[in-house]
Amino acid sequence: MTVKMIESSKNLSGANVLHYGMVGGGEDSFIGDVHRKSAMYDGKCKIVCGCFSRDYENTLRTGAALGISPDRLYRDFNEMAQREKERDGGIDFAVIVTPNSSHFLAAKAFLEAGIHVVCEKPLTCTVEQAGALRDLAREKDLILCVPYNYSGYPLVKQARKLVRDGKIGDVVMVMGEYPQDWLMDTVERGGQRQAAWRTDPGLSGVSNCVGDIGSHIENTVAYITGMKIKSLCAKLDIIGEERVLDTNASVLLEYANGATGMYWSSQVAAGYDNGLRVRVFGTKGSLEWAQEFPNVMSVTFKGQPTQTYCRGNGYLDDVASSRLPSGHSEGYNDAFANVYNSFATALLLKKDGQSVSSAECDYQDAEAGIDGVRFIHKCVESSQKGSVWVEM
Amino acid sequence: MTVKMIESSKNLSGANVLHYGMVGGGEDSFIGDVHRKSAMYDGKCKIVCGCFSRDYENTLRTGAALGISPDRLYRDFNEMAQREKERDGGIDFAVIVTPNSSHFLAAKAFLEAGIHVVCEKPLTCTVEQAGALRDLAREKDLILCVPYNYSGYPLVKQARKLVRDGKIGDVVMVMGEYPQDWLMDTVERGGQRQAAWRTDPGLSGVSNCVGDIGSHIENTVAYITGMKIKSLCAKLDIIGEERVLDTNASVLLEYANGATGMYWSSQVAAGYDNGLRVRVFGTKGSLEWAQEFPNVMSVTFKGQPTQTYCRGNGYLDDVASSRLPSGHSEGYNDAFANVYNSFATALLLKKDGQSVSSAECDYQDAEAGIDGVRFIHKCVESSQKGSVWVEM
Amino acid sequence: MTVKMIESSKNLSGANVLHYGMVGGGEDSFIGDVHRKSAMYDGKCKIVCGCFSRDYENTLRTGAALGISPDRLYRDFNEMAQREKERDGGIDFAVIVTPNSSHFLAAKAFLEAGIHVVCEKPLTCTVEQAGALRDLAREKDLILCVPYNYSGYPLVKQARKLVRDGKIGDVVMVMGEYPQDWLMDTVERGGQRQAAWRTDPGLSGVSNCVGDIGSHIENTVAYITGMKIKSLCAKLDIIGEERVLDTNASVLLEYANGATGMYWSSQVAAGYDNGLRVRVFGTKGSLEWAQEFPNVMSVTFKGQPTQTYCRGNGYLDDVASSRLPSGHSEGYNDAFANVYNSFATALLLKKDGQSVSSAECDYQDAEAGIDGVRFIHKCVESSQKGSVWVEM
Amino acid sequence: MTVKMIESSKNLSGANVLHYGMVGGGEDSFIGDVHRKSAMYDGKCKIVCGCFSRDYENTLRTGAALGISPDRLYRDFNEMAQREKERDGGIDFAVIVTPNSSHFLAAKAFLEAGIHVVCEKPLTCTVEQAGALRDLAREKDLILCVPYNYSGYPLVKQARKLVRDGKIGDVVMVMGEYPQDWLMDTVERGGQRQAAWRTDPGLSGVSNCVGDIGSHIENTVAYITGMKIKSLCAKLDIIGEERVLDTNASVLLEYANGATGMYWSSQVAAGYDNGLRVRVFGTKGSLEWAQEFPNVMSVTFKGQPTQTYCRGNGYLDDVASSRLPSGHSEGYNDAFANVYNSFATALLLKKDGQSVSSAECDYQDAEAGIDGVRFIHKCVESSQKGSVWVEM
Repeated sequence: MTVKMIESSKNLSGANVLHYGMVGGGEDSFIGDVHRKSAMYDGKCKIVCGCFSRDYENTLRTGAALGISPDRLYRDFNEMAQREKERDGGIDFAVIVTPNSSHFLAAKAFLEAGIHVVCEKPLTCTVEQAGALRDLAREKDLILCVPYNYSGYPLVKQARKLVRDGKIGDVVMVMGEYPQDWLMDTVERGGQRQAAWRTDPGLSGVSNCVGDIGSHIENTVAYITGMKIKSLCAKLDIIGEERVLDTNASVLLEYANGATGMYWSSQVAAGYDNGLRVRVFGTKGSLEWAQEFPNVMSVTFKGQPTQTYCRGNGYLDDVASSRLPSGHSEGYNDAFANVYNSFATALLLKKDGQSVSSAECDYQDAEAGIDGVRFIHKCVESSQKGSVWVEM
Repeated sequence: MTVKMIESSKNLSGANVLHYGMVGGGEDSFIGDVHRKSAMYDGKCKIVCGCFSRDYENTLRTGAALGISPDRLYRDFNEMAQREKERDGGIDFAVIVTPNSSHFLAAKAFLEAGIHVVCEKPLTCTVEQAGALRDLAREKDLILCVPYNYSGYPLVKQARKLVRDGKIGDVVMVMGEYPQDWLMDTVERGGQRQAAWRTDPGLSGVSNCVGDIGSHIENTVAYITGMKIKSLCAKLDIIGEERVLDTNASVLLEYANGATGMYWSSQVAAGYDNGLRVRVFGTKGSLEWAQEFPNVMSVTFKGQPTQTYCRGNGYLDDVASSRLPSGHSEGYNDAFANVYNSFATALLLKKDGQSVSSAECDYQDAEAGIDGVRFIHKCVESSQKGSVWVEM
Repeated sequence: MTVKMIESSKNLSGANVLHYGMVGGGEDSFIGDVHRKSAMYDGKCKIVCGCFSRDYENTLRTGAALGISPDRLYRDFNEMAQREKERDGGIDFAVIVTPNSSHFLAAKAFLEAGIHVVCEKPLTCTVEQAGALRDLAREKDLILCVPYNYSGYPLVKQARKLVRDGKIGDVVMVMGEYPQDWLMDTVERGGQRQAAWRTDPGLSGVSNCVGDIGSHIENTVAYITGMKIKSLCAKLDIIGEERVLDTNASVLLEYANGATGMYWSSQVAAGYDNGLRVRVFGTKGSLEWAQEFPNVMSVTFKGQPTQTYCRGNGYLDDVASSRLPSGHSEGYNDAFANVYNSFATALLLKKDGQSVSSAECDYQDAEAGIDGVRFIHKCVESSQKGSVWVEM
Repeated sequence: MTVKMIESSKNLSGANVLHYGMVGGGEDSFIGDVHRKSAMYDGKCKIVCGCFSRDYENTLRTGAALGISPDRLYRDFNEMAQREKERDGGIDFAVIVTPNSSHFLAAKAFLEAGIHVVCEKPLTCTVEQAGALRDLAREKDLILCVPYNYSGYPLVKQARKLVRDGKIGDVVMVMGEYPQDWLMDTVERGGQRQAAWRTDPGLSGVSNCVGDIGSHIENTVAYITGMKIKSLCAKLDIIGEERVLDTNASVLLEYANGATGMYWSSQVAAGYDNGLRVRVFGTKGSLEWAQEFPNVMSVTFKGQPTQTYCRGNGYLDDVASSRLPSGHSEGYNDAFANVYNSFATALLLKKDGQSVSSAECDYQDAEAGIDGVRFIHKCVESSQKGSVWVEM
């Protein structure tokens, strides 16, 4: 029952902070905000510049809201790379969160400027471009990080350790799936921006479904097993009127070690929000992890009952350390943040002399606090009197 | 399939930032770090001062790590309240995350200094003290927030709306439970600090189990239903050698509206990490929510199949808005943060001229990026050739 | 991976067959049919007489359908007991499945006639009557079986063994629940017979909800743990207009060994069909079993991951032997029986020269058989040719 | 909350009983016993003859145990077909449950003798043989039933109705899987008979894994959707030393309507006992059913929360009628049968003058009955006195 927690999560690392800038991630971006929140989580990274949009007004508004000095808000990534390179105390690294088609040129610009790069997946639109970036980073001795986020889950790290340590034997079969349902309707025609660029070959490249989510199966399996794909046979389906890119993809695979795999990804599978799920079967056991319930993993050793590993428990390896104790769903911080958000909103309004509506006051106040204390005392009183009924 | 997301979560609110200080939350504190991370989540709150421990060295180290100016690191909360009150641009609010026994005096000090207060639950050790704080805050027109965090979950807010709108009819029965197992062994004797203060009546007050977690059942049910407890009958069990406070608590309740309730909380229930679970039964339907799987909620309307509400979907009410799209478990940010943590660690070491071990390099690099792009292209190639096998 | 199966389930025991008669269980009875099917399951019991209803016509029709000789269809249980006692080769035992109020006199009649008895629960309407039957059976050296069916599940037997062997340590807490929702509406006023007698104190006795289902919690817990209840505190709620008996019951208990229990049973809990669920917590571990998913049981040993025991596996003890291999849900026989039912219905109609509608032909015919063989061959052909596509 | 129950399940059909004989199903057979139990479930079928094994001694012992007249126990199926054809009152149908390789000749013999046939799947070892049987049955106007049992589950019938009624729109994707783990070790070399014949091409035909379980995916999908397979691409893996037939099979399919399918079956997938699971995705919704939890099915209509259909509820269609009320797991009868088995065993021993050990007495006796009645009364007493504690 020892709890595995990340030391570095203590947020106590103010001494050494890395400065970074972002390309993409302006208003309406989903993933840009995720990157910024995550980057500041452990107190090691601070955003100091950006080129958040092809629309400079958007960049200015976004930068202002983030408290970035106006002279570090740029019109394009080339300008940003050049100016930050020349600047004394320029950024340590750049984060690229634009649609796929601009990844290559943006990453290239920063690497050439001697700046480390974090670039969203898929890294580029062609294999050649990806190779060129790899070579460039190597040549310049720079880090080029592709933040496949599912490798960041503690239990995925535990899965990797189990497989790599041979605990489930030789892998013989892998089942990977990633169903979603948000493209069942052609929402891209209604102006849904996330859908619009993903279904547009000009921005997305040769594939929508495989590129966006099938690639996460590929990476998560590779991260866990370390196995290389030898050959594959794929059937990509374009489901949805007037679409030109795949929205459903079925792949049969053979790995270099002779194991077989099946990967299914879909954006038109009713009932699934974000159902990444990976199952790895070996000669001595198996494991199964699903992103929607990331704090648990099923592990079976041959001939024994299936076990449910829960994040944060003492029986896990150190690689699976995390920021919260076991059982505290990783949304714990988000929920706490909701409380602070309500409280801060109310307080800001109050300081501004405005009245605060009940919707904005959705935090627990002193009355709730009193009720809580009374409840505890009445429980103790009842129990001490022989578990009799007591009035509140 | 519209996605409900919180506008204010966009982190774009740099203009108006509240300044706060913290009492408690030094090294080894769990909840202090949670508060700090959550408070900065939406960019509205910034920590500027603190008294993090009774041990001033701890306060100094913690403050330094957080980048707080040394002149705002205080020896006790009275000094902090006084000096921040006098200071031009002193804090907007204080966050109190000490053990229960010091809540009252700390909160009182800040309220008397005209400073808003966020105080962990249980608010105080006696009902009288809690009432006094409520009265003081009212008199001074200050906000006193008790951050019961489970009310912060989007689906708890949805549950509240369903019940308040009468969708499940008149509530007739409530089942609440909160089992944990971390006190099965008497870990407080082995120096586990979280266990040590909770099981010590001097720091914890009249109750351990009810005070620490039973009170969360009470508040979550009250938040969802709005029902007042009329009377209760409790049986508190002290399980574990040489303990003096309860570790298992069973409560039978009657609410003012005539409904019945059963609350069970335990710290000695093998197999449960943090199993808060609330079920509310009404004359027209029922709902069920469990903290360990916070993104789903079961809702049944009489005579119909049980439905599984998933956070982030378009069929939810606005109160259930959140920061991430549906299906992205709220640990999504944490996992992304893990990636950044690995990357930042490696980069800091690299900048320092040190070599980086593979454990510290647990992020996906350019090779992974290339493999990802190749996978996509091979899938497209296979499919276009009639779903034939292609070599990687 | 050895499979635990019951030897006696092989249905190969024709040599020794017990003869029995039934009281109650006529047309419209639910539990009578369950008893008859179950009794013939292992080929050891054969029904030869009965008094199926207070309505003799019903008895005659039921008996005819069951192929019972008319001279062994009786008008009342006293006649049946007397005549079977006098008869050469009279019944070995009587099965009593009437509403609760007639259990006592019926059981008494058969015991006095020297006939063994299987009597549905609750055994009688008063404790005194139950004691009297026990004494009578003892005096006559007869078996009096109360078929609490939940003790018949293989994993309940496994649970009992784990607890009795001390595998989860000393039991400190028990949570039992049995929610249903079929009495949310007052269906007894619409002629639902199962509801009518249960809500009628004249037929049901002092309690509806506790008597009908709360008593199953009591017995299942007693069966598993062997613990005696020392004292209890109960709150019975009468929910539903014009009702006079309880439909929701909450009970706090203390066992003789000092453990605490909470039992909740309800017939007005939306979303639950038949939710019997028992959790037993000890000083070394815990276990959890739910009737609606009877083939799995969660078992946790302190400090280890929760394990899911699945019926039929080799790691279980012999007490948990069963009739089907692991993973074959125990509805397997029912599904097979559905196939036979469709087939037999069609064949009977065919023999009778009638035409058979497609609804009556809901079994798989030769076409399905051919498709199945073709599928197998095509799979093999494709794989042998290098996993190429083959046309069907 | 109306309960859907099968009328014909009432076991009240003694008047018309079909007589049948069985080929295969001797001692040690698993499926033979399943067929016999299922066939007698609704009282329509009675076994009267058999040729249970190639070992005549086995046939004699099996027949005796089943109470079959010795003159109807045959040495081979040809003799059985001939003699039953000639006999006055010969069998209505024959059930064939031998290994695959003898299906064709046995089925042919009975059809030629004018006897209806129920033959286990796969129907034959070649497509030509299957077609020949179909033609023969047609010519003779005989029923040839292939009892794919998964089509017998009420919720599979409900799934079929939903798809056929267009409730989930046009089907675009099907995911079918059937993992097991019982052949992870080469148990066929240790004398496990079920494993021995399945892995032997002489008895099993061209395939083990696809033939035994992959074919169930094929049939269940066909039954639910009615879709024809147009082409397929299969990769069959032989996992396990010295084996010659497949134990793991991955199939990519295209249906005639353009939909895509993926079928995975395996006998070496640790953690799975009998995991048949089918998911069907359409343009308006989806459904999912798994054999190990056959009483529930997930159904999603586009844009709405996923619903959990539970067997036996009033919102289901008539096709999903069943023998037990909702929530009573279909193992209900099995558990009741266990009680009767214990009771009958004890009673048989008692009648024989033998002593009965406690293991053989695993049924609830009068003491349990008394405890149950006392529990009910004490609950009522406590509640009536104001929910005070009462001693037992």
